[in-house]
Amino acid sequence: MSSAGDDPPRSSRRGLLAAAGGLVVARGARAARGADRGAKTEAFWGSHQAGIVTPQQSQCYMAAFDLATDRRAEVIALLRRWTRAAARLTEGGAMVPPGGSTDAPGGDSGEATGLGPARLTITFGFGAGLFIKDGTDRYGLAALRPAALVDLPRFNGDQLVAGRTGGDLWVQACAEDPQLVFHAVRQMTRLAEDSAELRWAQAGFLSAPGDGSTPRNLMGFKDGTQRPADVNKAVWVREPGWMRAGSYVVVRRIRMALEHWDRTKLSFQEETMGRHKYSGAPLGLRGEFEPLGLDRNDVDGNPIIAEGAHVRLGNAQANGAADILRRGYSYNEGVNFTAERWPPWRQGMELDAGLLFVCYQNDPRAGFVRIFEKMAKFDMLNQYVTHTGGGLFACPGGAVEGEFIGQALFERA
Amino acid sequence: MSSAGDDPPRSSRRGLLAAAGGLVVARGARAARGADRGAKTEAFWGSHQAGIVTPQQSQCYMAAFDLATDRRAEVIALLRRWTRAAARLTEGGAMVPPGGSTDAPGGDSGEATGLGPARLTITFGFGAGLFIKDGTDRYGLAALRPAALVDLPRFNGDQLVAGRTGGDLWVQACAEDPQLVFHAVRQMTRLAEDSAELRWAQAGFLSAPGDGSTPRNLMGFKDGTQRPADVNKAVWVREPGWMRAGSYVVVRRIRMALEHWDRTKLSFQEETMGRHKYSGAPLGLRGEFEPLGLDRNDVDGNPIIAEGAHVRLGNAQANGAADILRRGYSYNEGVNFTAERWPPWRQGMELDAGLLFVCYQNDPRAGFVRIFEKMAKFDMLNQYVTHTGGGLFACPGGAVEGEFIGQALFERA
Repeated sequence: MSSAGDDPPRSSRRGLLAAAGGLVVARGARAARGADRGAKTEAFWGSHQAGIVTPQQSQCYMAAFDLATDRRAEVIALLRRWTRAAARLTEGGAMVPPGGSTDAPGGDSGEATGLGPARLTITFGFGAGLFIKDGTDRYGLAALRPAALVDLPRFNGDQLVAGRTGGDLWVQACAEDPQLVFHAVRQMTRLAEDSAELRWAQAGFLSAPGDGSTPRNLMGFKDGTQRPADVNKAVWVREPGWMRAGSYVVVRRIRMALEHWDRTKLSFQEETMGRHKYSGAPLGLRGEFEPLGLDRNDVDGNPIIAEGAHVRLGNAQANGAADILRRGYSYNEGVNFTAERWPPWRQGMELDAGLLFVCYQNDPRAGFVRIFEKMAKFDMLNQYVTHTGGGLFACPGGAVEGEFIGQALFERA
Repeated sequence: MSSAGDDPPRSSRRGLLAAAGGLVVARGARAARGADRGAKTEAFWGSHQAGIVTPQQSQCYMAAFDLATDRRAEVIALLRRWTRAAARLTEGGAMVPPGGSTDAPGGDSGEATGLGPARLTITFGFGAGLFIKDGTDRYGLAALRPAALVDLPRFNGDQLVAGRTGGDLWVQACAEDPQLVFHAVRQMTRLAEDSAELRWAQAGFLSAPGDGSTPRNLMGFKDGTQRPADVNKAVWVREPGWMRAGSYVVVRRIRMALEHWDRTKLSFQEETMGRHKYSGAPLGLRGEFEPLGLDRNDVDGNPIIAEGAHVRLGNAQANGAADILRRGYSYNEGVNFTAERWPPWRQGMELDAGLLFVCYQNDPRAGFVRIFEKMAKFDMLNQYVTHTGGGLFACPGGAVEGEFIGQALFERA
């Protein structure tokens, strides 16, 4: 059966739209429709990868892959395919069918037609397994593994599921549309061909109030009030050379025991967080952006923000830790069976929802690891959350057109 | 620790916003902000439930519950709580803490603050288990079970997982924001108290191109081109009396084998669907909305739209079936292990994504069941999809203020 009656898939969705509408819509004309958030573009090429300090989009979908090849050339070829495709998708383009055929498998899957670019960013990261796996240096890269790309310690309370944790390669797609980020990861998965296998994937969303106020997480509290004083200083790496202008990302899939949380008094929720729920102000204060005042005491001499309050333990200065840039999303994936660890020991289905915690930093040893080692032990919030997956990935610097992400690593080796 | 430094949770998010911003924003003033899609409201009270013929919102979250009580009065009390809360949330309000306390558990969970109403609708349905369960008439309603509320037959190829299927009660929340629909179902779950237990829940999204064209599903094809000629006639029930102005909903969680689909030639994808991928036109034609022309033959006398094409088998007229109103969403829930049923018999992780099929009709025996019995056997698309859950629910007519959803059923019994 011929597809002669259809507009064949063009090399870009922009072209497709133009053909379908009988209009030639040039790039300038599209950009002029400022009201159309689907039309906005984030640059892919540049000294840094996009999706790190990029203002946070409302939708995220990320995936981790295990490399299934022993050949260094195949890894390079994969990174080349990924880089080319990411640049193309980021600009609102579609995948090009192999050899220009409009019928062969491997063209675009089509579901993003008319939706993008919608501020799509695609960010790549390398897990420890790229450098050494089960003691084997598969690609001659072991000597180039950065000291900062540690094996994360087992933190107190960790309930990490192997199938949701780790991976040799990692891809984060963010945009203003859930189908667009799905589409991006789907293309990367397909382009992995036989060189890499999907290990885990996780979608998330960020719902920002229309008035521009700080978004809330599923516990109902504002999340993201505290940002590093100097974002660039906090996130960008200087050494080793191949990681210059890159960053390290820590991801944690954190299930919230929302049924338990919802049976907790507001005052105890606030004591646990160290902030007021609705205003977002530090406990006892009125303004969301007021300094925490961690040394304030009540009339009995007890700290107003408890020693175990989440906001105290998460504060970099109070931990002697470096700042981290949080860039997390909420997730919602139906239900799970649970047997509660608290009276009256209910069992049954609970909402499988919570936080897809994402943070970027220039050294996780001084950032997430230092903060979370303390937090995992003492945070009052721990009774309401369970970490079930995630990973640590080295995100190299950006690429200029013609390069591929991570090229400096392979040229060094 | 007192929460004196915070704005306490008010009885409505509107109130909260007003307090936070130091403004009194009246309903009229909010409605005037037409550009703010968060401000748009769908009416809850009315002769029909909202969320059925309501223009489809971009986000959906639904849940099914098993009744855990033998007491009819508890079921009524639950439906009263749900109705009151749904009306309140739909208007952009928040949950009211019990007894007006601002500290006791049971107030609003807070994560929807500033997001709504965003066209929120909450729709309720009754499963067969409300009428009879394991042969027991728990609530004296068995005689009132409508003939149309059948036990769905086992369809060819069904791979339904018990934990994703059925339920005595069903709630569908739709809105323009993923956190808002999560919030709505979360409140209903909490209000179920000990009377009903969560059985399954499923989120979905619908990404509509900015140019108003028909949205695409994850197979990349337009989905929703065909609508009933007379929507009201297709969906609203007349008999029995307690179901007047109600409708029946069929839900199916349909996983798509996207990796397989993506290795299929475009021409075979189109033959399978019976439509062109990009234009959405019936095979061999140019316009999305042209009649299917199911009797068109090629020069060899073979039908242009194959006997097993999805669009032919899904067509009500071609099936002697009644029209159904499709109102489905795409879903994306990470990965699943699969062992493929086709060469080269790969095994590994696949994307757990597909279609949350939702359709409304006045009689599922003449609608979904008739269409799908044939489709489940002959649809060429079947090799790419697996039905893993869902259910059939009777959605009663709407309520006027002071009534509860389903009141006519309990008054009749």
